[in-house]
Amino acid sequence: MNRLVAEIAASYRERPINPLLDYSLLPSRKRVIESIHLVWELLFPGYFGKQDLNDETMEYHIGSVLIQIQEKLSDQIGRSLLYRRGQDSHSSQEVRPEAEEIIHQFLAEIPRIRSVLATDAQIAFDGDPAANDLSEIIFSYPGLFAVGIYRMAHELELLSVPLIPRIMTEYAHSVTGIDIHPGAKIGSSFFIDHGTGVVIGETTVIGNRVKVYHGVTLGALSLREGHLMYGKKRHPTLEDDVTVYSGASILGGDTVIGKGVVIGSNVSIFKSVPAGAKVTVKNPELIIKGQARQEFPQEFTWDWII
Amino acid sequence: MNRLVAEIAASYRERPINPLLDYSLLPSRKRVIESIHLVWELLFPGYFGKQDLNDETMEYHIGSVLIQIQEKLSDQIGRSLLYRRGQDSHSSQEVRPEAEEIIHQFLAEIPRIRSVLATDAQIAFDGDPAANDLSEIIFSYPGLFAVGIYRMAHELELLSVPLIPRIMTEYAHSVTGIDIHPGAKIGSSFFIDHGTGVVIGETTVIGNRVKVYHGVTLGALSLREGHLMYGKKRHPTLEDDVTVYSGASILGGDTVIGKGVVIGSNVSIFKSVPAGAKVTVKNPELIIKGQARQEFPQEFTWDWII
Amino acid sequence: MNRLVAEIAASYRERPINPLLDYSLLPSRKRVIESIHLVWELLFPGYFGKQDLNDETMEYHIGSVLIQIQEKLSDQIGRSLLYRRGQDSHSSQEVRPEAEEIIHQFLAEIPRIRSVLATDAQIAFDGDPAANDLSEIIFSYPGLFAVGIYRMAHELELLSVPLIPRIMTEYAHSVTGIDIHPGAKIGSSFFIDHGTGVVIGETTVIGNRVKVYHGVTLGALSLREGHLMYGKKRHPTLEDDVTVYSGASILGGDTVIGKGVVIGSNVSIFKSVPAGAKVTVKNPELIIKGQARQEFPQEFTWDWII
Amino acid sequence: MNRLVAEIAASYRERPINPLLDYSLLPSRKRVIESIHLVWELLFPGYFGKQDLNDETMEYHIGSVLIQIQEKLSDQIGRSLLYRRGQDSHSSQEVRPEAEEIIHQFLAEIPRIRSVLATDAQIAFDGDPAANDLSEIIFSYPGLFAVGIYRMAHELELLSVPLIPRIMTEYAHSVTGIDIHPGAKIGSSFFIDHGTGVVIGETTVIGNRVKVYHGVTLGALSLREGHLMYGKKRHPTLEDDVTVYSGASILGGDTVIGKGVVIGSNVSIFKSVPAGAKVTVKNPELIIKGQARQEFPQEFTWDWII
Amino acid sequence: MNRLVAEIAASYRERPINPLLDYSLLPSRKRVIESIHLVWELLFPGYFGKQDLNDETMEYHIGSVLIQIQEKLSDQIGRSLLYRRGQDSHSSQEVRPEAEEIIHQFLAEIPRIRSVLATDAQIAFDGDPAANDLSEIIFSYPGLFAVGIYRMAHELELLSVPLIPRIMTEYAHSVTGIDIHPGAKIGSSFFIDHGTGVVIGETTVIGNRVKVYHGVTLGALSLREGHLMYGKKRHPTLEDDVTVYSGASILGGDTVIGKGVVIGSNVSIFKSVPAGAKVTVKNPELIIKGQARQEFPQEFTWDWII
Amino acid sequence: MNRLVAEIAASYRERPINPLLDYSLLPSRKRVIESIHLVWELLFPGYFGKQDLNDETMEYHIGSVLIQIQEKLSDQIGRSLLYRRGQDSHSSQEVRPEAEEIIHQFLAEIPRIRSVLATDAQIAFDGDPAANDLSEIIFSYPGLFAVGIYRMAHELELLSVPLIPRIMTEYAHSVTGIDIHPGAKIGSSFFIDHGTGVVIGETTVIGNRVKVYHGVTLGALSLREGHLMYGKKRHPTLEDDVTVYSGASILGGDTVIGKGVVIGSNVSIFKSVPAGAKVTVKNPELIIKGQARQEFPQEFTWDWII
Repeated sequence: MNRLVAEIAASYRERPINPLLDYSLLPSRKRVIESIHLVWELLFPGYFGKQDLNDETMEYHIGSVLIQIQEKLSDQIGRSLLYRRGQDSHSSQEVRPEAEEIIHQFLAEIPRIRSVLATDAQIAFDGDPAANDLSEIIFSYPGLFAVGIYRMAHELELLSVPLIPRIMTEYAHSVTGIDIHPGAKIGSSFFIDHGTGVVIGETTVIGNRVKVYHGVTLGALSLREGHLMYGKKRHPTLEDDVTVYSGASILGGDTVIGKGVVIGSNVSIFKSVPAGAKVTVKNPELIIKGQARQEFPQEFTWDWII
Repeated sequence: MNRLVAEIAASYRERPINPLLDYSLLPSRKRVIESIHLVWELLFPGYFGKQDLNDETMEYHIGSVLIQIQEKLSDQIGRSLLYRRGQDSHSSQEVRPEAEEIIHQFLAEIPRIRSVLATDAQIAFDGDPAANDLSEIIFSYPGLFAVGIYRMAHELELLSVPLIPRIMTEYAHSVTGIDIHPGAKIGSSFFIDHGTGVVIGETTVIGNRVKVYHGVTLGALSLREGHLMYGKKRHPTLEDDVTVYSGASILGGDTVIGKGVVIGSNVSIFKSVPAGAKVTVKNPELIIKGQARQEFPQEFTWDWII
Repeated sequence: MNRLVAEIAASYRERPINPLLDYSLLPSRKRVIESIHLVWELLFPGYFGKQDLNDETMEYHIGSVLIQIQEKLSDQIGRSLLYRRGQDSHSSQEVRPEAEEIIHQFLAEIPRIRSVLATDAQIAFDGDPAANDLSEIIFSYPGLFAVGIYRMAHELELLSVPLIPRIMTEYAHSVTGIDIHPGAKIGSSFFIDHGTGVVIGETTVIGNRVKVYHGVTLGALSLREGHLMYGKKRHPTLEDDVTVYSGASILGGDTVIGKGVVIGSNVSIFKSVPAGAKVTVKNPELIIKGQARQEFPQEFTWDWII
Repeated sequence: MNRLVAEIAASYRERPINPLLDYSLLPSRKRVIESIHLVWELLFPGYFGKQDLNDETMEYHIGSVLIQIQEKLSDQIGRSLLYRRGQDSHSSQEVRPEAEEIIHQFLAEIPRIRSVLATDAQIAFDGDPAANDLSEIIFSYPGLFAVGIYRMAHELELLSVPLIPRIMTEYAHSVTGIDIHPGAKIGSSFFIDHGTGVVIGETTVIGNRVKVYHGVTLGALSLREGHLMYGKKRHPTLEDDVTVYSGASILGGDTVIGKGVVIGSNVSIFKSVPAGAKVTVKNPELIIKGQARQEFPQEFTWDWII
Repeated sequence: MNRLVAEIAASYRERPINPLLDYSLLPSRKRVIESIHLVWELLFPGYFGKQDLNDETMEYHIGSVLIQIQEKLSDQIGRSLLYRRGQDSHSSQEVRPEAEEIIHQFLAEIPRIRSVLATDAQIAFDGDPAANDLSEIIFSYPGLFAVGIYRMAHELELLSVPLIPRIMTEYAHSVTGIDIHPGAKIGSSFFIDHGTGVVIGETTVIGNRVKVYHGVTLGALSLREGHLMYGKKRHPTLEDDVTVYSGASILGGDTVIGKGVVIGSNVSIFKSVPAGAKVTVKNPELIIKGQARQEFPQEFTWDWII
Repeated sequence: MNRLVAEIAASYRERPINPLLDYSLLPSRKRVIESIHLVWELLFPGYFGKQDLNDETMEYHIGSVLIQIQEKLSDQIGRSLLYRRGQDSHSSQEVRPEAEEIIHQFLAEIPRIRSVLATDAQIAFDGDPAANDLSEIIFSYPGLFAVGIYRMAHELELLSVPLIPRIMTEYAHSVTGIDIHPGAKIGSSFFIDHGTGVVIGETTVIGNRVKVYHGVTLGALSLREGHLMYGKKRHPTLEDDVTVYSGASILGGDTVIGKGVVIGSNVSIFKSVPAGAKVTVKNPELIIKGQARQEFPQEFTWDWII
């Protein structure tokens, strides 16, 4: 036991990846996640958190939740600022004004985030025959959750908050299987159906009224150069009204998918597609075995799919 | 702060998506999830929840868990019924008898659900060389969890409970990456291996002894018409003893996959396949680079895969 | 109610899958997961669990966490040993020495696991232009979490602990969408990006500095024979410095991917690939509709992708 | 086991003291106590509950705590009203308006309770040389806690709420050893020092600036007649500026202790005492043993004590 | 820090009062208290713990609570038996049968305890004009709580369980200020009013329908000899229908208070009192100061008090 | 609602007793109490908190608990120092060194406190025939708990920590009914039996091997002058080996109770008593009513009592 403790302690003291001896405070993933749920409660009142709100008490409830968010998140933002500056916690007073300024700007965006999320929910309802009403979407659609968390995280990314935006979107990734980088730019009325396996890269740009199904990758063409690509546009642009069906990949920072384009299932795209096009893959030849072979002429009239 | 609160409050009062001022009570996602875990405890005694059951006390334990489920779930069902009727909580007495009738019918199905889940666990064990015994499957297989939650949710769907069935299956989706709509009809001995990325649509019909691997979509052909398709059969039918390997898609409400059919990995199917057939994709031509090019003739003797 | 309780009790007494009457104690999934998080806290001090460690108190903190792990996990290991032996809890004293021996061996590996995970984190940072620093990776990358849990679970698998290794990796699967069997053998500097949908089978062997993207399957060729395959090598071998892009499948126990090979997106491999090769799929022909048809010659100069 | 369960169940069905089969809902002692602490938080902001209040957010904090009190307590009040009426929970809608009216009246008294408690705290500080400042009294004096809870409970008693006022004061009794019946009438600037063993009966009337020390009983003369005395004044009246030292008893409904009277330790009083009097007991003769006998003439110049 | 740890560790190793190195398991005060509350829930259904019981589910609820008590308490009893035997936890299997026999005998007494407590509650109601109904007494009277806990603890004392009975009654002492030794023998219809400061010694014997007020001591005459008195009757006997008013002391193992005796407030008794007597103290002479001296002839017609 | 909120907010802004707008941080009573229990765990290892300590892990356990105490308590001490200085939380860095110095001095006293408490426990065992062994005393005697908390609090009082010592002893008062001011000076082997109602004032001085029973007051003679007495010795001195039986009062700052003195029950003392004396009260004359009058000659051979 003593030897084991000593070994672990030695490794703590040696490894450069340990903030242990340099910074005493890092943001807490737990607190960041709690903040996410508080904002969510504010975005969808009555669905999450407190129920039985009424006209008389509404303002107090909103104020109270805002205070909680402010406290929880400004503390975490302060820690992330200290971390970026490479300072220890004895300087925590110094970052306080900056953290408070950031949290105020963030909170001021909540009404706008809320109105954008309303467009996301509405288009999900309009486009999904399996949805019975908006409440079902708010309660249970993973796409709405992932996009909502992305929208919060993106605001903090724009305010140059370190670490926290990514903690937020990776939390949503864990819950939904949808991986949206907080740096992506996404318009209104965005709908992700089913969602598991969706990847949306850091420099992706997405217009309004875009739909994306499960397993879609909006990725980089080449990852060979690694950090050389840092800060460059590596992921595609999707203009308004684009639809991308399940399993498709759209790759490359110069790839622009024009307005109204439909990309079929499993299509891989590496070049720009002009507005209005519908792109499907010519289905690969199937090999049929068993006595039923001749009865199965699958006609590739891919028209239906898009 | 005051301005922000006022803005948020105003948006609560304006937006039609807020049940806030119309209904005081909605179901609670948290309580629904707690109910799921209570039922799970009942389905797999000794594995989850209380351990150290014995013959003498078993009935009391079962009774006690049933009471908890009954209370938690009948309250949530009552709220969802009120919600559907567009009534506020002052009428909560009125929906009580209906909620209690529903919960009784639901609970009465538990022994049957349990015996069906036993077939699901058994076939998982029989078909997976990586499984050491049934306990490993019950403890850790996401496929069994997702199918089990689907089986609960499906019963509530049949009883026309609003909102809750979907909250249940989307919870399982979040935990497992397997998205099964509660409206699907699934026979016994159903096995989903690995499971991440599986999507099974609302009007899918699945027979007995069907196996499905990760990344399989049982989906709709076209989603263009959106709500026009509401209530129509949009997803395929899989007859008994069908196997669908990873990444395959079977699409369309008229598509029927006959008894004993095997669908290979990454195959996309849009038309019915007669019983007994084995369908694989002719592997697309590979492009080999590097000095090793000529040493790599990958022979497509797809026989092994199915 | 009485009838329902009786039915459920009867099914408990009849079904062979119930350990209920045979074993009074099984491992607790909840406790195993708590143990995982304690080990994680030890592996990444300051990031998870207690913050504000300092040089003076470090050893006590480490010792205290080790004691907690030891207690929690040795109890669970004891239960799993009893379970394997088919003994009830009255024999729990007998397995104690074995459980304690196992936990000591497991804990003794923690410094080594920690140093391997440091290589995993470093290569993730080196290869991902979206990562700002190591802390971001430690806090939020699902690949690091899944690989870390696999590395713990693999040690217990080597020590022949029943049930628990799989509970651990399936927990990571649930959180990340990455399904790594605890029996797999994985070298250092292993990086999984995005990760959702990755499957790594039980007999897979992976060298050092391997990268794998989301949706990759390292699987068995044929699952037809089920338990006949038990114990055989069914999954591929990846030598050092291999990269496998998203959606690719590498199948078969005899399939060896040579040193430095790059496998492109969506490629399916069933045979060995010699060292140094780069394999991409010849992209299937696309079908373009709409006025823009002729403007869209997507050139398959797949070079960029790898 | 079965026999035992049956016996207990039989006793539940037989005993008249069980509300079990008559009322399905009783107030919850736990919730009532939670309400007490919420009101306490409101009465002493910054000391209990949330810290770090500021001018900007104060109103929202107050509003939020008021909402919580309102919800928690109005539900409990509704249950107690149902209980008094002998109705089951199906009539819970009927008592709602009455419960809400009561809670509004109760909350409206909070500012007044707060200003009275400020006088209680101030006089404690003025009279106790062991108190360093007001904060010490607010944080730790049991007398202030017991009197504060009494003041809440008394308001509910005035509003004819059943059961709850007594649950409140008995909670304070449990915490402090001070037993004040919620029916007592107590003026401002009331101070109980140390407090253990103090009993203040239901029909006691106490003026302003009264001090009472530990072990004081303000009780009934005769308890012989039991319920015959119900509703009669059975406990004494203490006019303004009375002081009662430790262990004294003042008994009887007709006993009036005049303005400014001082009652010494261990005095028992059964008749009215005119204003301005100082009453001490003639100390009983002591019996001294041991060699020191003659050195110990304790002179009963009780002057110092009062 | 290191020095401090070493010092403390050294003191752990040296002091004989530490069971640390001799016994690995002692009973847990926390678990014992949890058991108390479970039994309490069983004794007063609907008041504490689960509400909304009904005829259909009652047996399951009772069974479920009994199982919980059985598990929690038999574990603690086993630990206390090990402790008494001076054995370490490796022998825990050996005490199991004894612990289970004890818990069965204890649980079998619950219906009887419950019926005796019903007499305690009823007499409290009959004798206290401040009580509005039985529910008020059950919810809030400390006397009933202390006596109820005593009744549980006494059963365990009779079954020779070490440590736990005293932990139970001292818990009640902490909550109520009433200190009843678990060894005392107390008849039915026992009522303690207010209760703070009551002490009832180990060898006290109390008949039926006895009332005791706050501050009453039923104690030993001389404590000089300490452990020499161990096991002897040191505390008084109160026959049926005795009443003892506040602050009175009855001392001595040979002191018998006869049937129907009334002992007035502050009386000290050291010898037996024959049946039917009423004993009061001649009130000590009072000293009156101030102008009101002559107006205050307190007549000691102690008749009223008893 | 709005009016009520405004009223309460206004009262917060006006009243001088609110630290609200002046200090943002006060100590937290909750955290202080948590610290108490951590120290208690350290003082009585194996009885409270973690069980199953062993020789190998003991140091780590101690170190880990010390770290927790240090963090929790130094934060609270820092807040109390800020409070005393009248500074807001922006200066919290400034008090840090002082808080850390205090906590180090406090922790350094723990071994000594522990050895003194061992004498307290031992003498309780030696003197109480109802105690079966030391464990029973440690687990359940309120006297030991109150004295232990006092001993902690007294150390902090000596280190001039504001607010916290009193919060600690009043917590013990709430739990035990024993009110010991943290400023009192108390020797080793101090035993309080039963304890409810004991009051020990701020300037009391107590020697070694003193015993005190329930209801004993060691108080001030006159409280008339209030704050004029601040800082003066107002409470008595008890020399070594004094015993004070239940209900006795010893009052006055000049009152010295000599070595070995015994004070009988209910005696009131206002002057010094020389060493070796035994003081009892001449029992007041009793008034006997009923037929048994002549049979009851209570002989006042008070010898036995002391």
